[in-house]
Amino acid sequence: MIKKADVILYDKLVSKDLLSYSKKECIKIYVGKKSEGSSHFQEDINKELRDYGEKHNIVVRLKGGDPYIFGRGAEEAMYLYERGIPFEVIPGISSTVSCPMYSGIPLSYRESNSAFAFLTGHEAEDKSFSINWNKLPDTLVIVMGIKNRAAIAQNLIKAGFNPKTPVAIIKNGTTLLQETTVCDLSTLGETPAEPPSVIFVGKNVLFRDKLDFFEKKLS
Amino acid sequence: MIKKADVILYDKLVSKDLLSYSKKECIKIYVGKKSEGSSHFQEDINKELRDYGEKHNIVVRLKGGDPYIFGRGAEEAMYLYERGIPFEVIPGISSTVSCPMYSGIPLSYRESNSAFAFLTGHEAEDKSFSINWNKLPDTLVIVMGIKNRAAIAQNLIKAGFNPKTPVAIIKNGTTLLQETTVCDLSTLGETPAEPPSVIFVGKNVLFRDKLDFFEKKLS
Repeated sequence: MIKKADVILYDKLVSKDLLSYSKKECIKIYVGKKSEGSSHFQEDINKELRDYGEKHNIVVRLKGGDPYIFGRGAEEAMYLYERGIPFEVIPGISSTVSCPMYSGIPLSYRESNSAFAFLTGHEAEDKSFSINWNKLPDTLVIVMGIKNRAAIAQNLIKAGFNPKTPVAIIKNGTTLLQETTVCDLSTLGETPAEPPSVIFVGKNVLFRDKLDFFEKKLS
Repeated sequence: MIKKADVILYDKLVSKDLLSYSKKECIKIYVGKKSEGSSHFQEDINKELRDYGEKHNIVVRLKGGDPYIFGRGAEEAMYLYERGIPFEVIPGISSTVSCPMYSGIPLSYRESNSAFAFLTGHEAEDKSFSINWNKLPDTLVIVMGIKNRAAIAQNLIKAGFNPKTPVAIIKNGTTLLQETTVCDLSTLGETPAEPPSVIFVGKNVLFRDKLDFFEKKLS
């Protein structure tokens, strides 16, 4: 689809290598500069999608992370649906799945857990609801949680998580700059960290000593 | 990696098209015939991985679904680690993520949910623990849950889920045979269904009317 695209609107976290597959005449537009939290910004992207969608044959919206996992992909799809612009969604390898894997942490393990949850650490401010911390299993993957990591840890401990629950902060996951920091819930707040990082909470962090095939190779 | 493999051990749900990329002399072994529940069977696969791993340069274990999401990938990796056989894990597009997407159901939506959980509907019988139904968010993706769907629905309703919570059963997701059946928790038990299917529980099922780009195209 990238090869066929007339226009590509791409995110900050998209690998630039992907863009090199596009046609010479393809219009490539970076839409990842402004703050992620701004809804005005999202509205701008929606309008660009519509405008290019009306004028061009194949417009690709290339998103990092995962469009349908706290990625606003469905919001963009709804915008297009409501305006009668046909679309398809093509899944990629989700960062929520691949980052723990590349850090040697399985999301599930038969003798360890039968459920796990994904949550966003960056909830929309205008929302009428928020995460129910009492309704979470003991294994978690948190995206966009670096800024609020102290509050997240507090909320989890208040909801009954053991403060000693192992935590991994996976920075630049799956890239040659991947770096994993291990701490626990009681120290998460003061552990140095910066985005883009995925936070994994749960005892499966302990598999890392054995299953870390990637950072061992990098070092 | 498939192109380079000397041996490929592949699952039932693996697309046969993938195997056509292998070398002519590649040994291809189907290991998906026996019942998934049998631990003896898993032990056989582990031994084959080790035996081929000792004799050949590149052995690919090609799994359907997702190796690190209730897929025993980490168990196989641990087996190899303990025997000093080097391995890498390469993520694919997870069926847990792609099946709802292809059915028009976003895993998250800003105005709808900030968390969701994945669970297995087929827990190992010899386990010392099981899913805590009271510790789940309101949006769920359940794999291998078809056989136990009546009990799963009962457990969720008992834990406080509204019996009218929308449910989608996505059969043969992302393939040309994809077929989604919509029901609710109160009727899930008696709704006809068969594996391989992914079950999605939560109000995001309602986006399907608008975001189903795939089955609409198939029909």
